[in-house]
Amino acid sequence: MDYIARQKKLVDRLRQAGLDALLVTYLPNVQYLCGFSGTAGVLLVLVGARSPKLFFYTDGRYTQQAAEQVQGAKVVIAKKSALVEACDRARKAEIEILGFEAGYLSYEIHGQVRTLLGNKVRLKPAGSVIEQLRAIKDSGEIDRIKSAALLASGLLQSALGAVRSGVAENLVAGELEMQARKAGAEKMSFDTIVAAGPRSALPHGRASSQAIPERGFIILDYGVILAGYCSDMTRTVHVGRASAEERRMYAAVLEAQLASIDAVRPGVEAGDVDKAGRERLKKAGFGAFFTHSTGHGVGIEVHESPRLAKDQKQKLEPGMVVTIEPGIYIPGKGGVRIEDMVLVTDSGHEVLTPAAKDLIEL
Amino acid sequence: MDYIARQKKLVDRLRQAGLDALLVTYLPNVQYLCGFSGTAGVLLVLVGARSPKLFFYTDGRYTQQAAEQVQGAKVVIAKKSALVEACDRARKAEIEILGFEAGYLSYEIHGQVRTLLGNKVRLKPAGSVIEQLRAIKDSGEIDRIKSAALLASGLLQSALGAVRSGVAENLVAGELEMQARKAGAEKMSFDTIVAAGPRSALPHGRASSQAIPERGFIILDYGVILAGYCSDMTRTVHVGRASAEERRMYAAVLEAQLASIDAVRPGVEAGDVDKAGRERLKKAGFGAFFTHSTGHGVGIEVHESPRLAKDQKQKLEPGMVVTIEPGIYIPGKGGVRIEDMVLVTDSGHEVLTPAAKDLIEL
Repeated sequence: MDYIARQKKLVDRLRQAGLDALLVTYLPNVQYLCGFSGTAGVLLVLVGARSPKLFFYTDGRYTQQAAEQVQGAKVVIAKKSALVEACDRARKAEIEILGFEAGYLSYEIHGQVRTLLGNKVRLKPAGSVIEQLRAIKDSGEIDRIKSAALLASGLLQSALGAVRSGVAENLVAGELEMQARKAGAEKMSFDTIVAAGPRSALPHGRASSQAIPERGFIILDYGVILAGYCSDMTRTVHVGRASAEERRMYAAVLEAQLASIDAVRPGVEAGDVDKAGRERLKKAGFGAFFTHSTGHGVGIEVHESPRLAKDQKQKLEPGMVVTIEPGIYIPGKGGVRIEDMVLVTDSGHEVLTPAAKDLIEL
Repeated sequence: MDYIARQKKLVDRLRQAGLDALLVTYLPNVQYLCGFSGTAGVLLVLVGARSPKLFFYTDGRYTQQAAEQVQGAKVVIAKKSALVEACDRARKAEIEILGFEAGYLSYEIHGQVRTLLGNKVRLKPAGSVIEQLRAIKDSGEIDRIKSAALLASGLLQSALGAVRSGVAENLVAGELEMQARKAGAEKMSFDTIVAAGPRSALPHGRASSQAIPERGFIILDYGVILAGYCSDMTRTVHVGRASAEERRMYAAVLEAQLASIDAVRPGVEAGDVDKAGRERLKKAGFGAFFTHSTGHGVGIEVHESPRLAKDQKQKLEPGMVVTIEPGIYIPGKGGVRIEDMVLVTDSGHEVLTPAAKDLIEL
């Protein structure tokens, strides 16, 4: 992974924004910029007059891991605390304006940082400068995301093998997760959703101890982390024979999903991708039951920039990886959601999760 | 669970602190106060002249879940956003001082809330008022934590059954997690740690695809969530026969762990519990290899108040549940950690994770 290239891009943006340095405390951003994947660490990026200098501060638990992972930054095992030592360094570097991640730094820690810095250094929100970089994946990232997406897609069959009436939802999830580990996944990218029967009407029905009923929809929404990158996909199948109304539900969601995927290409507004699918669901009479947005970026985090939601003006760019996941949820009856990961290419898009989407009746 | 009692305690504290209301945005705190376990929601607690009023705001994805879970608060499915509507309500209630969770609310959202509230409502950090309540578990919580601890403790044997030279660490984790689900766990309380051979020298060695070597320590650190409450425990076993030096390492950690457990009782300072074990490890010559603190509270979150670390002055109180988990980590060689969950009782303590702690050689 080309961390040095990312650091250079960031430093250019910081210079343009008139920032002398950036305090990176949000761990997915730390990982993106220097490779560290542990749970405690602070990265200080000093823009510098000639060349940038990066310092990574962590504690004694991560001595070995930081030495193995961190690239392009000097590793410091903090004796006091990572934050205190990062602020010490910023003060000693005699910078004037230190950017910070206003969307992640808590009000309280912001106050502590201000005190630690003294009056000579001014703190300034850096906006979503790192998130913007992260939204456009580089080739190393695309390779990893494709692998994570393929791995997840390939797990569907073994998960479906475990689905039958009377089996608890969480045993289906357990089987899926065991197969994910066997296939080399580091972990799941979020709590596996297995929502059967009336529970399929819960858009976030984490696998429960409820037994799968004799008939009805079952939503499987899951993803893995492979080499630090996430995947995220959903399929809905039907246990027993689907009724005419259920077939109509499924067909409407699939049509909406295909319409939104079809709208994905460089230059299109995120809101228009959402609109393409939402209009189809409205026409089919299910508009009121599509209660969430169409999708989100996926990368180091399973939810990241961009957002594909109503009226979002952000334009899609090549290298973005997004989910397309319309769904409808009818309380008491059930729900359907179909989700793929889609890469924005120079000419259009590429679907990264090839598992079949015809209605499967088990 | 007696949510109403918790809400009453909170309102008393808010009154004492001179706050007219509290904006609760940190989800584990929301769950503690009203029972909602979803991933998006804001709770507004209005102290009121006569009786308190609570409002819970979430979005359309959680209509059904909120209706099922929330107690003691009026549920509002927000049309704009949960935060905007909570602020609208606070403004309309004509309160003067609105407390907020400064340790969790980001600098950015704090700014948005200030704008939404206008000039008539003043925002004030509420300190760790909810965290302090949460540190002392009520009887419903203690029951759930005991069940989660017993479940985890009972999984050790099946995990050890999967441990043998040549098997990947993450298959041991997968087996453990599958058994956890079969036993009814909602999910694991954190990424399962299975760290074998030289990787046992990583204090946070999440299970990897590395095969278990022919001999050496293997650390298993895991926990489950059951009915919303976490457990957390660690055992270290040895694959093959342990050397004299390895026996000395194990014995030193066990002695330190027992010494710290023995120090747990109401009125003792958290730092003294840490000291009791740390001194033993120093005497045994391993002081430099104990690179973290002794423990932490466990409840809705796997890491919560209090902290058992060097020089911590906070006094233990009956109803606290803490981990006691000294460890030593010798780079290139290996590590040992032993961790139990311990309830502070009126007269002393009760260990909640009864799995054996003699050195097991597999």
